[in-house]
Amino acid sequence: MVTWENLDKQESYKKLMSLKGQVILKDVLNAERVKKCSVPMAGGLTYNYAAKQVNEQILSVLQSLSDEMQTTEKFQELYEGAMINTGEKRLVLHHLTRGQLGKDVISEGKNKRDFYKSQQDAIAEFVEKVHSGKITNANGEKFTTVVQIGIGGSDLGPRAIYLALEQWARKNNKLKMEAKFISNVDPDDGAGVALSLDLAHSLFVLVSKSGTTQETLANELFVKGFLTKAGLDPSKHMIAVTSETSPLANNPAYLASFYIDDYIGGRYSSSSAVGGAILSLAFGADVFADFLKGAHEADKLATEKDIMKNPALLDALIGLYERNVQEYPSTVVLPYSQALSRFPAHLQQADMESNGKHVNRFGDKVDYVTGPVLLGEPGTNGQHSFYQLLHQGTDIIPLQFVGFIDNQRGEDIEVDGSTSQKKLCANLVAQIVAFACGKSDEDPNKTFDGERPSSLIHGKQLNPESMGALLAHFENKIMFQGFLWNLNSFDQEGVQLGKKLTKQVLAGQVDGALKAYSEIFDI
Amino acid sequence: MVTWENLDKQESYKKLMSLKGQVILKDVLNAERVKKCSVPMAGGLTYNYAAKQVNEQILSVLQSLSDEMQTTEKFQELYEGAMINTGEKRLVLHHLTRGQLGKDVISEGKNKRDFYKSQQDAIAEFVEKVHSGKITNANGEKFTTVVQIGIGGSDLGPRAIYLALEQWARKNNKLKMEAKFISNVDPDDGAGVALSLDLAHSLFVLVSKSGTTQETLANELFVKGFLTKAGLDPSKHMIAVTSETSPLANNPAYLASFYIDDYIGGRYSSSSAVGGAILSLAFGADVFADFLKGAHEADKLATEKDIMKNPALLDALIGLYERNVQEYPSTVVLPYSQALSRFPAHLQQADMESNGKHVNRFGDKVDYVTGPVLLGEPGTNGQHSFYQLLHQGTDIIPLQFVGFIDNQRGEDIEVDGSTSQKKLCANLVAQIVAFACGKSDEDPNKTFDGERPSSLIHGKQLNPESMGALLAHFENKIMFQGFLWNLNSFDQEGVQLGKKLTKQVLAGQVDGALKAYSEIFDI
Repeated sequence: MVTWENLDKQESYKKLMSLKGQVILKDVLNAERVKKCSVPMAGGLTYNYAAKQVNEQILSVLQSLSDEMQTTEKFQELYEGAMINTGEKRLVLHHLTRGQLGKDVISEGKNKRDFYKSQQDAIAEFVEKVHSGKITNANGEKFTTVVQIGIGGSDLGPRAIYLALEQWARKNNKLKMEAKFISNVDPDDGAGVALSLDLAHSLFVLVSKSGTTQETLANELFVKGFLTKAGLDPSKHMIAVTSETSPLANNPAYLASFYIDDYIGGRYSSSSAVGGAILSLAFGADVFADFLKGAHEADKLATEKDIMKNPALLDALIGLYERNVQEYPSTVVLPYSQALSRFPAHLQQADMESNGKHVNRFGDKVDYVTGPVLLGEPGTNGQHSFYQLLHQGTDIIPLQFVGFIDNQRGEDIEVDGSTSQKKLCANLVAQIVAFACGKSDEDPNKTFDGERPSSLIHGKQLNPESMGALLAHFENKIMFQGFLWNLNSFDQEGVQLGKKLTKQVLAGQVDGALKAYSEIFDI
Repeated sequence: MVTWENLDKQESYKKLMSLKGQVILKDVLNAERVKKCSVPMAGGLTYNYAAKQVNEQILSVLQSLSDEMQTTEKFQELYEGAMINTGEKRLVLHHLTRGQLGKDVISEGKNKRDFYKSQQDAIAEFVEKVHSGKITNANGEKFTTVVQIGIGGSDLGPRAIYLALEQWARKNNKLKMEAKFISNVDPDDGAGVALSLDLAHSLFVLVSKSGTTQETLANELFVKGFLTKAGLDPSKHMIAVTSETSPLANNPAYLASFYIDDYIGGRYSSSSAVGGAILSLAFGADVFADFLKGAHEADKLATEKDIMKNPALLDALIGLYERNVQEYPSTVVLPYSQALSRFPAHLQQADMESNGKHVNRFGDKVDYVTGPVLLGEPGTNGQHSFYQLLHQGTDIIPLQFVGFIDNQRGEDIEVDGSTSQKKLCANLVAQIVAFACGKSDEDPNKTFDGERPSSLIHGKQLNPESMGALLAHFENKIMFQGFLWNLNSFDQEGVQLGKKLTKQVLAGQVDGALKAYSEIFDI
């Protein structure tokens, strides 16, 4: 049995706190360090931490901290079916959607891996029928577009991954259906998408685990209105992804239903049927299987005790050192890949919703800071935007770069002796060193203090397998940080109060400030 | 003449520092306060600061600070043509693109307002010819799509504004041409867009003030390759927006050229020809003129000394109180409007590139923190994502809500007794109060400490005029904060080092860490 204790109870944490500000990057960053500080990831990716403010001593204490806090033992308990989500009294099983990691997990008499696999198989079978024209619209014509209706985890992850693989799929003849997304309860979102569609050839995927998500149910009916107005039968144009106990399950209002359960948290659901249905419809079930394979390989690495063999754990520990010892309040993700344009938005949810907590898993207030603010935009775009503050602002903000040798579409141009892809990578490389080492100048306005730490995840190309590995890396990093901060990373009580007050506002059962604000909006 | 001094030299700043933590929101936020703490903005918008941690005393000291630091006098110097951008020795004249505010600004014998107006007129004339079919493709067919090629300020602002008005334009028969954007040097960005286009009916707007932006020039040639391959003459499909002294000016490679000058900073260029060309082509010059009108009205309010009549100044001062006195490191923008989905990304540049500085306008290091990290996503989406941390994380992060009574497209549905638009607004209202007042609970995991301050910008509908006002509000807020922190908000030296190192990497003139990183990417 593992022991759940607060971070600041650990001997190695006390030791770590004495190691603040030890590493001066401009003194240590050289070619040898770049080559040495490199840990293999899954999917052909590599995690490089040469430009992080760590040294042998700090890494050794981080290893001790990990051991002392039983991080990988906790992971094992998680994937073998312990009730890790104590607040909601739930298992946490998203890893099982991509493969078996340890002992079978049996819940209510069912093998959970078998359950998740059965849903993947059912989706694959359905998808094959859609792609081959065995399932069509009322006129016997193939569906060409798939539209996800979902919000939060049912939107951000699947959307980010679709965008991440769209150009790769176009290049490799894997784009079976174009995908679109409706999420916001703002009717301009649903109307904007619905009115742009060829409705007769559109298939909608309604995603809500509980079957009660306010925004999603409103958008379902909104979309059904457009379908009906176009003379189409909504039940022939919509499938559902939900839990077996939800009102959407086994419902003749849908062409088919696929299932998840309470052990898959929304923000961790991209590898479940929530991502599986739309991504398999868009790219084919084989592509989704490759994505799962990459994620599963990453999960296997996350079982390693040795932080030099476990990049997610190492990343988590360095992030903790930056947040709690170096006291940096934010973190930035900078993918040098336009395909990853919405991946930071997904990570924003995954990270901030998981570890943005002020009480530990027993409900006691913690005496240390937890999850940082996370933001990010693709490079090189960000260089022409907020990098000014990252380079010369008054706060230090740690950075996470991601880059690939090859682009996805295979189209490029050489200008001034280099291709655009090389320019992209050269910019990335230059930024790492500029952030770390800075530059002195007679003009203080042109002085760069440097000492902005960054890590780099790099690979040959962003493809289904490396995308799966990248996603699982961050999911596991967040999980390990939750273990270290002794949080329940898998509930989200912070979203409940707003929901409750919204209902009161809509019911007109409000007074005071809430009533005055409501009047502003004629509610 | 105004005096430029550091914030911490001001008597009222010392006074302000003694007023930390004075206001407990849950004690003061009531209906009366919501009604009282309201300042009219331009474009029919209103700034409400009821849920900010200020009281009469703090506001009075903020007014004194503003007076002591001569904020509006500095603004007057700026719009009347003083060399406010001392680093680059440039005037700062983006306000003149939307109207005359004070004395004529004459530079090199030219009236600058006349110059900017002449470019607007030239664009309007060109646009009319494109829309009416007087300027067509080689087959005499109308152009249907306009594609901006630009990065940073030439991308984020125009893109955010296009998205902000697209559904409004579709509803009001003002969408003349669909707009797309190519920005990243990642060839997958340009290829992804170019290969999705009906090239024969596409008109490209190449935007680079200097005519030397690496990414933009590479993308220009990339796009020209696609055009040529399609048998089209690039010079008949591309216009340029640049400075009169750039290599792109008066160049037969372009169908037409429109001009800006060095006094329009990239991140402030949406109201110049940089935004004017694409937005006028997309929506018509009359719509762009309404947008400018809203911005100009906002600029006029920014000349008011009384902070109760100057919402941008008030917003700036409250932000400064939050950053320097309350010591909050980040700020979040939360538009409850899908149309504003990319507006936070634009503000990220506008704010973080302007005030992410560590030296004052004389090059001396400042002893206080300056620009905060800025992030944001639209509500209600964000509620299902990172709001958990905002509600229950260990840091307090001030919030900026934006919302409108009416949607743009005019399509809606009533579910459970309320329309989606009402649900959207009810969620916004509920969040303000949840963040401010929190909720106690027996279960500490369900306890909300509250005291998360927020302001609210609200209006009837997001349309060209209110969009202009919204943009100018934030531009002016950022400008005032720059005055208060005594920064040069109009240069961006922090981006130079990366550019320089990139050139070295591409030229192979590197050693050490830079060489080792380059080898990772086969450069």
